[in-house]
Amino acid sequence: MVYVSRKEHFNAAHKLYNPAWSREKNLDVFGPCANENWHGHNFDLIVTVKGVPDPETGFVIDLKKLSLLIRQEVTDKLDHKNLNLDVEFMKDKLASCENLIMEIWKILAPKISTISKFGVLHALRLYETPRNYVEYFGEPN
Amino acid sequence: MVYVSRKEHFNAAHKLYNPAWSREKNLDVFGPCANENWHGHNFDLIVTVKGVPDPETGFVIDLKKLSLLIRQEVTDKLDHKNLNLDVEFMKDKLASCENLIMEIWKILAPKISTISKFGVLHALRLYETPRNYVEYFGEPN
Amino acid sequence: MVYVSRKEHFNAAHKLYNPAWSREKNLDVFGPCANENWHGHNFDLIVTVKGVPDPETGFVIDLKKLSLLIRQEVTDKLDHKNLNLDVEFMKDKLASCENLIMEIWKILAPKISTISKFGVLHALRLYETPRNYVEYFGEPN
Amino acid sequence: MVYVSRKEHFNAAHKLYNPAWSREKNLDVFGPCANENWHGHNFDLIVTVKGVPDPETGFVIDLKKLSLLIRQEVTDKLDHKNLNLDVEFMKDKLASCENLIMEIWKILAPKISTISKFGVLHALRLYETPRNYVEYFGEPN
Amino acid sequence: MVYVSRKEHFNAAHKLYNPAWSREKNLDVFGPCANENWHGHNFDLIVTVKGVPDPETGFVIDLKKLSLLIRQEVTDKLDHKNLNLDVEFMKDKLASCENLIMEIWKILAPKISTISKFGVLHALRLYETPRNYVEYFGEPN
Amino acid sequence: MVYVSRKEHFNAAHKLYNPAWSREKNLDVFGPCANENWHGHNFDLIVTVKGVPDPETGFVIDLKKLSLLIRQEVTDKLDHKNLNLDVEFMKDKLASCENLIMEIWKILAPKISTISKFGVLHALRLYETPRNYVEYFGEPN
Repeated sequence: MVYVSRKEHFNAAHKLYNPAWSREKNLDVFGPCANENWHGHNFDLIVTVKGVPDPETGFVIDLKKLSLLIRQEVTDKLDHKNLNLDVEFMKDKLASCENLIMEIWKILAPKISTISKFGVLHALRLYETPRNYVEYFGEPN
Repeated sequence: MVYVSRKEHFNAAHKLYNPAWSREKNLDVFGPCANENWHGHNFDLIVTVKGVPDPETGFVIDLKKLSLLIRQEVTDKLDHKNLNLDVEFMKDKLASCENLIMEIWKILAPKISTISKFGVLHALRLYETPRNYVEYFGEPN
Repeated sequence: MVYVSRKEHFNAAHKLYNPAWSREKNLDVFGPCANENWHGHNFDLIVTVKGVPDPETGFVIDLKKLSLLIRQEVTDKLDHKNLNLDVEFMKDKLASCENLIMEIWKILAPKISTISKFGVLHALRLYETPRNYVEYFGEPN
Repeated sequence: MVYVSRKEHFNAAHKLYNPAWSREKNLDVFGPCANENWHGHNFDLIVTVKGVPDPETGFVIDLKKLSLLIRQEVTDKLDHKNLNLDVEFMKDKLASCENLIMEIWKILAPKISTISKFGVLHALRLYETPRNYVEYFGEPN
Repeated sequence: MVYVSRKEHFNAAHKLYNPAWSREKNLDVFGPCANENWHGHNFDLIVTVKGVPDPETGFVIDLKKLSLLIRQEVTDKLDHKNLNLDVEFMKDKLASCENLIMEIWKILAPKISTISKFGVLHALRLYETPRNYVEYFGEPN
Repeated sequence: MVYVSRKEHFNAAHKLYNPAWSREKNLDVFGPCANENWHGHNFDLIVTVKGVPDPETGFVIDLKKLSLLIRQEVTDKLDHKNLNLDVEFMKDKLASCENLIMEIWKILAPKISTISKFGVLHALRLYETPRNYVEYFGEPN
């Protein structure tokens, strides 16, 4: 079993805001992240696929295909977008990194098999800044 | 003459949009950077001060004081903000990095002498992403 | 279960020195790290907390609170300090990264619940240099 | 149990090419990576050893010895080399990162005990570029 | 005058070899860099353009256009290539970074005006490794 | 004229302390940097040499020789040392980065000609942390 990873990036705006709360409570809980005029980040997304290498190619997964898949299915939908307003799969969700990474998993996990017969999605890591990041490994069945 | 540099950062939203143009022309010129719902970045700002070291301290400038000055005068006004809507000194200006760095110069250049008798502002470098950045050295008198 | 990480840093002096040994044996075992006049590093500390996101905030843990906790309980006690001489919780211990990371765990693990009802400490990573680092996941009960 | 890691690097040429296939099929599958005149990378290799720290040194493993071992046994044999033509242990293997990391494991795993009585090899991470990397944790017995 | 920079990358093989010398002299002068079976690197190229920002766009140069120009004219011709064998503009030249950066200048300098009426090429920086790089500012007329 | 740079590093302890002042004044001016038990950093030193490439090698300077020169003359004397106590050329000087970089210049500038007939020392850059650095270009004659 070898683990293969690819890093992609996207630049997006968001705010942390719970619409069930008053503006004051949002500012109290989320601080400057609740700024109603938004702020933004350069996000980095690392996708890790695990599997046994294909003996004919030496690959668990073709990283050019994985890069293309991540762009088409995920980062093209997030890049130069507003996570709260422009992204179908984040609709009605708090735009936290925790919620975002779980939604990205739902999109990518079933698609890996379309580009690799040997690999399955193992982990996602999402950097919001160089000092803050989240990881997700899916849920046990 | 020694050159001393300090890096600070801020996370902000912006869009590139010329209000004198139609929405179509803005999208044509600025592409996804003109997304009306904004996008954002983790910006890094490097401030370089030059001067002869003070023989009593060995310092051209005290970097703790320089860090505090940059935060109070510049990055606290940009961090978790919208460069087009929330920033007094960017009002009525296109929110490009070129315009932003020239405004930051105007703020910082006269303040360096308040924290160092030996240093003058030499250069600013502003990273919008790890792959895109601008530099400014002021204008000749 | 989502894993949330925050990076903090501190700059410290130390030496590797076993007081039960002669100076010669220390130099023989630890090499230049045993220099009696000390040396130092820019340390980076990554703290990882795991948990289920709070549905009201989308957070496993508030990273501003986690950052503050790490600073108050750990890095303020290490920054611009001598790990052998100035740090209460390293007293009478060899100032190796292995020993330091296990002590940091003892401090942080019980405090995470004071700032998050959803998260528990999962991992620590401590960089001594960009090329040398240690990780600790606690001990099984 | 503490996990201790050391990063080393090497610069090498390679191509991805299955000799059982036609030139056309190689170009079709591997794209520009199959360029018959080779291409190359700055590879980074991170070696992680786990164990209980030696109470006399505070070390799971002496990182200077680990660095020397990695250089002598692995990176000196890969640095400024052609992975397809010059490397004994890659002979007759597709020069993918997946195959390379599994061969490096075979070399290093039995040698760790020669320099540490407390540590065993836990993981390898091999960066081909800053955006593409593989990891290997050995095989269950 | 503002200076605007864009970073691109390419992965290539090369060797340092003077065909006027014996194999022994090449190995003596260039060491492992003369390995006849090649070695390679992940190169980073930073292109800096200077000028006065266009008042209508706030741009010295459109970085998307600059990125495209660098790719089409330079990095697509170097990526996954052998600098000694595959690159027209390096023919009959020693494949050192110094020679490469001067050839890249000759290609890019006259093309900048095709994508910006305000900018001129100011500097190139070429990283062969994170620790070795060259810079070129053209020649005075 | 091409500019060629090499990065080396060293890990050292120091404190900022003017012996002509009281302990209180030192703490007042230098803050935690005056801690009498020292602190330390991972320093990075970038040395830039400029010149016309040698037509026989394509080199302004052989970077392996430059690396060796920097280590022998500078970083071996600083690595795992105390800048205030262990370093001959910093004796009786305040251990600031400004003073250190000027002393390194005095050592390296006259030695470059011993390893290159084409290059002269152009610049030094010394990182104390990833966010604080100084540069020096020598003095006009």
